[in-house]
Amino acid sequence: MIPERISRLKPYKTETSKARVRLSSNELPYPIPEHLKRRIAEEVAKAPVERYPDPTASELKGVLSEFFGVGEENIVLGNGSDELIYYLSAVVGDRGGVYVPVPTFPMYGISADVMGREKVTVPLTEDFDIDLERSLGFAERYTLAYFAFPNNPTGNLFSEDRIRRIRERDVFVVIDEAYYHYSGRTFLGEALSREDTVVLRTLSKIGMAGLRVGILIAREEVAREIDKVRLPFNITYPSQIIAKVMLTEGREFIEESVEKVVRERERVFRELKSIDGVEPFPSRANFILFRTPYPAEEVHSRMLNYGVLIRDVSYMPRLERCLRVSIGRPEENDAFLEALYRSVRDLG
Amino acid sequence: MIPERISRLKPYKTETSKARVRLSSNELPYPIPEHLKRRIAEEVAKAPVERYPDPTASELKGVLSEFFGVGEENIVLGNGSDELIYYLSAVVGDRGGVYVPVPTFPMYGISADVMGREKVTVPLTEDFDIDLERSLGFAERYTLAYFAFPNNPTGNLFSEDRIRRIRERDVFVVIDEAYYHYSGRTFLGEALSREDTVVLRTLSKIGMAGLRVGILIAREEVAREIDKVRLPFNITYPSQIIAKVMLTEGREFIEESVEKVVRERERVFRELKSIDGVEPFPSRANFILFRTPYPAEEVHSRMLNYGVLIRDVSYMPRLERCLRVSIGRPEENDAFLEALYRSVRDLG
Repeated sequence: MIPERISRLKPYKTETSKARVRLSSNELPYPIPEHLKRRIAEEVAKAPVERYPDPTASELKGVLSEFFGVGEENIVLGNGSDELIYYLSAVVGDRGGVYVPVPTFPMYGISADVMGREKVTVPLTEDFDIDLERSLGFAERYTLAYFAFPNNPTGNLFSEDRIRRIRERDVFVVIDEAYYHYSGRTFLGEALSREDTVVLRTLSKIGMAGLRVGILIAREEVAREIDKVRLPFNITYPSQIIAKVMLTEGREFIEESVEKVVRERERVFRELKSIDGVEPFPSRANFILFRTPYPAEEVHSRMLNYGVLIRDVSYMPRLERCLRVSIGRPEENDAFLEALYRSVRDLG
Repeated sequence: MIPERISRLKPYKTETSKARVRLSSNELPYPIPEHLKRRIAEEVAKAPVERYPDPTASELKGVLSEFFGVGEENIVLGNGSDELIYYLSAVVGDRGGVYVPVPTFPMYGISADVMGREKVTVPLTEDFDIDLERSLGFAERYTLAYFAFPNNPTGNLFSEDRIRRIRERDVFVVIDEAYYHYSGRTFLGEALSREDTVVLRTLSKIGMAGLRVGILIAREEVAREIDKVRLPFNITYPSQIIAKVMLTEGREFIEESVEKVVRERERVFRELKSIDGVEPFPSRANFILFRTPYPAEEVHSRMLNYGVLIRDVSYMPRLERCLRVSIGRPEENDAFLEALYRSVRDLG
């Protein structure tokens, strides 16, 4: 009774190796300060978790509305953006194909497979931008398109104009701005003014990955329809409470941490360039993609021997010999650079 | 771009009215004891919620495996059973129709609408059992069937034999045992021995509704396929931690609370029978369905005036003038019985 599209699906790969320095999941590298942790514990202790959470998560939505500068009626919450991607692929564009430029975040393609929709994958150009000509050539076959902006794992921003050219072909576009806080670029205005564009944001990259809170932003008419598909209690009671504490009392921590990561990203980029044979790609996110002259899995396992976990992404199209490193705290980045330097030297 | 099957869907109704006594959501009515709350707060304070949770939730699965007496390889976790229902309707039976006996838990039908599958609804018999003849008459049209066991909101157990007769027609059956702890009856043995049967359990009815943890139990081959569809981080970090504390250090609290609820259910049933004109239906769950001679919405609003919130389910087929009350603590049940007695008297 399990269809072939599922049986041939590979289990989703997550990196669970133990390591002293973990720079593989693009999380915020700064631990939540003790005073916030105490406040979180206090609030959680008060919550009656034997009861269902608020199905509308209205207090959290109020805080998010202020945080993102949009109306509460423009927001649909997901158990991480992942869940919102499933919702979108389940209903938007009514089972036409799903366009996915590759390489990118794997959930877009998985959602198409799970929902039984045709997946139209088009490789990016050599410089990791959208291949407009090929994408438009297939435009008859898809009704929904996903763009990670900036893209993961390449780190760059696609040309906004190419996204709009695809949208002109009656395609509903999802702009996944998971790394918005590190890029500063957004389609928010278009999501609020058009019925064929939505933006995804997340709390996962700014200190709350464990809470699983994804945010879809859209015009009210669009948000209202997608909200009907949302499971009524999809944001847990503890997550609603903790996210509220973090986004109110923890604002300064979040903002300072993001700034530090952006600064470190520029430093790590420069240092990577100075390692012989290593080619880093410019990034607008909280991670950097880079290529070495050696097989990525050998670099990966050597790095792990030196206690540093990064992500091998060389199995993806266009990313031969590529790895991705999340930006950590300065001392973690130093450990990473040192380990990479040694690994490359060992292999050379 | 939003298909008609979604635009005509009504938003899911949840009961959010304020009331002194809330008996509308079938939660565990006993608050979590202070010593457990302290332990929960302690453990949550230690958790790095800025990090992604364990994607396999392996420690929680270990505890659940022991709690339910099944192997870890037989378990798929959902963000509540709701999410598991979406997964099942997305992939099992590859887009044939979905059979739903009505009235029942609304998510089964909603999942079919969301996933764009035909919904085959067959009304229950007068005594709330499966209408076998009509159900088999439509058997060509569906490949997946949902049975709440016991059924919500009627409270009874369907004839097991009728479920098996439907399954014989090459139908994959989902046995939703959300209220198992109050019924003691299960298809677990069949879920572990057959490839066409899965059981759903949940922590929501035994003191953890706020955590959103649903459990699918199946043969390893089946569980493995459905687990591929599962979003990799669907159980939040706090939920994994809190559920573990509750299911280890809170076992006694849970077991004693369930026993008290079962005793109170029998008492409330007897007392309901003694109110003139009120007809309660026997229940194997932690709620009771009952009918009065008056329009259910009038009873509902009068009860609310007396400070007691219950669920009006009279909009469902076969349930004219019916309401559903969750079993509460003894004093809450007394308040409910008193308010019902008065409401019926006012209307008489």
